[in-house]
Amino acid sequence: MNKVILLKTRPKGKPSLKDFELIKEEKPQPKEGEILLKAKYVSVDPYLRGRMRDEKSYIEPFKVGEPLESGIIAEVIESKNKNFKKGDFVNGMLQWKQFQTSNGNGLNKVDNEKVPLKAYLGILGLTGITAYLGLKKIGKPEKGETLLVSGAAGAVGSVVGQIGKIKGCRVVGITGSEEKIDRIQEKFGFDAAINYKTTDNMKKAIAESCPDGVDVYFDNVGGEILDAALMNMNKYGRVVNCGAISTYNDTEIPTGPRVETTLIKNSILMQGFTVRDFVKDFGPAQRRLAQWMEEDKLTYMETVVEGFENIPQAFIDLFDGKNKGKMIVVV
Amino acid sequence: MNKVILLKTRPKGKPSLKDFELIKEEKPQPKEGEILLKAKYVSVDPYLRGRMRDEKSYIEPFKVGEPLESGIIAEVIESKNKNFKKGDFVNGMLQWKQFQTSNGNGLNKVDNEKVPLKAYLGILGLTGITAYLGLKKIGKPEKGETLLVSGAAGAVGSVVGQIGKIKGCRVVGITGSEEKIDRIQEKFGFDAAINYKTTDNMKKAIAESCPDGVDVYFDNVGGEILDAALMNMNKYGRVVNCGAISTYNDTEIPTGPRVETTLIKNSILMQGFTVRDFVKDFGPAQRRLAQWMEEDKLTYMETVVEGFENIPQAFIDLFDGKNKGKMIVVV
Repeated sequence: MNKVILLKTRPKGKPSLKDFELIKEEKPQPKEGEILLKAKYVSVDPYLRGRMRDEKSYIEPFKVGEPLESGIIAEVIESKNKNFKKGDFVNGMLQWKQFQTSNGNGLNKVDNEKVPLKAYLGILGLTGITAYLGLKKIGKPEKGETLLVSGAAGAVGSVVGQIGKIKGCRVVGITGSEEKIDRIQEKFGFDAAINYKTTDNMKKAIAESCPDGVDVYFDNVGGEILDAALMNMNKYGRVVNCGAISTYNDTEIPTGPRVETTLIKNSILMQGFTVRDFVKDFGPAQRRLAQWMEEDKLTYMETVVEGFENIPQAFIDLFDGKNKGKMIVVV
Repeated sequence: MNKVILLKTRPKGKPSLKDFELIKEEKPQPKEGEILLKAKYVSVDPYLRGRMRDEKSYIEPFKVGEPLESGIIAEVIESKNKNFKKGDFVNGMLQWKQFQTSNGNGLNKVDNEKVPLKAYLGILGLTGITAYLGLKKIGKPEKGETLLVSGAAGAVGSVVGQIGKIKGCRVVGITGSEEKIDRIQEKFGFDAAINYKTTDNMKKAIAESCPDGVDVYFDNVGGEILDAALMNMNKYGRVVNCGAISTYNDTEIPTGPRVETTLIKNSILMQGFTVRDFVKDFGPAQRRLAQWMEEDKLTYMETVVEGFENIPQAFIDLFDGKNKGKMIVVV
């Protein structure tokens, strides 16, 4: 038999276990030209919350009653496709199923000679590439500038901060616990850090940690932290709108201070993106990240949860900041 | 004697005549190296409202009790500077004084052989250059795209729309009266127009006027019209934040729907600017605009008010939309 996780109901506010359903069905058989895959590592990411809404976005919304999907590394256990052989590992957008068939479209073969397989879901996967390309294409940090990063201990933020250091920036991180503050300063080399949960006045705290102002703000959270960052941006500052996890569970459109006058006053750029915008640059990005890893300039953390059944809980835990770096479920 | 207009008090909300003071003082005498100028045409512009606030911005705030300044065309009536001779006309940031001296720094000589002198305060001055460079550097309209412009009948907006047509865009304007609707369609060649004062649902009205969505939104007004435009932006849309006249008289920071999720979903860029950011490009921009004028591809309107004493009222009238195109005071 095969286990499959479906979207049972669209979450209202924060997702809960009752929004998901585990079912059992027949194990599929590959047809001619197909491969049979067994899921090994499943990535859970905040952006999946957006796909659970029934609204137009950069990617089709999930359908109620159908399997969810995310980045998955799977093993080829049977092949009727000449491009793949039994024992290969592949990486791609796959469904939350223990076993599934595929014609191989959109899958990349990965090997674990130089780096562990799981790295392809994180620092060498969409997470690391998001950090690298968002910063390179929009943030454009220059040596000597100040780079502020929110969600700094997270899978994307920790890579952004390390790249900022490689580029010669002063790097300041915003995160939500003293343990994370220690982690981003000691493990990831941030110059300073702010605990937003224990800080009353974020505008002032950012001003104190960034005495020369903020040139690049890489935002993973949106909301009031974005407001406070905007009030500290230098002339010609760049805001990289990568994520807005603080708003993902809102049931109404959240309001906040208008940005237009701030943008005009200081000639500030704010740009949203999703990593798919830069799909042509994925190869060079991955090679650059792998090179930095080999040179020990780049490191990462991950939280590994065991068991296919625990995918929904691992996803929910992202919104409580329970992960240290990339959250991965080992099937 | 000489007439001078001072900032008497910083306006609270909408400026009123009591915020300004007309005084009389001795007519100045030029020293060696200086010229004596007589103001001929004075530009009044919405952005001056920002300089009346006591806060950091891209340009020093005006000081209470001191003369205001703006773009002025003046005649050299006496010269002790070898670069200027009596009868020359100059254009530059000058004080609201009938007569003033200058060492010539920052002044450009202008002549009225090909175009009227007043054009250098409008379509060939900062207004036209703002439209041209904001659109070229940030909006980057492509042939076949949809360009939406607010403040469409204004000095900047009307030039933006005409350039959009030259570039092969579908151009839709937002403005505040039926007379302005007629003007932008008949005189400036906009493809469609929306009267925001008689429209309940701006989001829907924009969707109807822009059936293929909005690729570039050139915003002169901010506020709820910006909100409605953002909800209609296409993937990879560009928002040029040029002005936010709807918020300039606010006494508290206005709030509105948060933009970050919208920016991320559709990979939208929002960028504020002031024309001074592109000072190196002023020469080519002015030449291009002049060429289009000679080719009859670009036209303009202006509202001319007579009398030095009426400068403050002309400025105040901008916020009631009483001007048709560029507002100029003839001294």
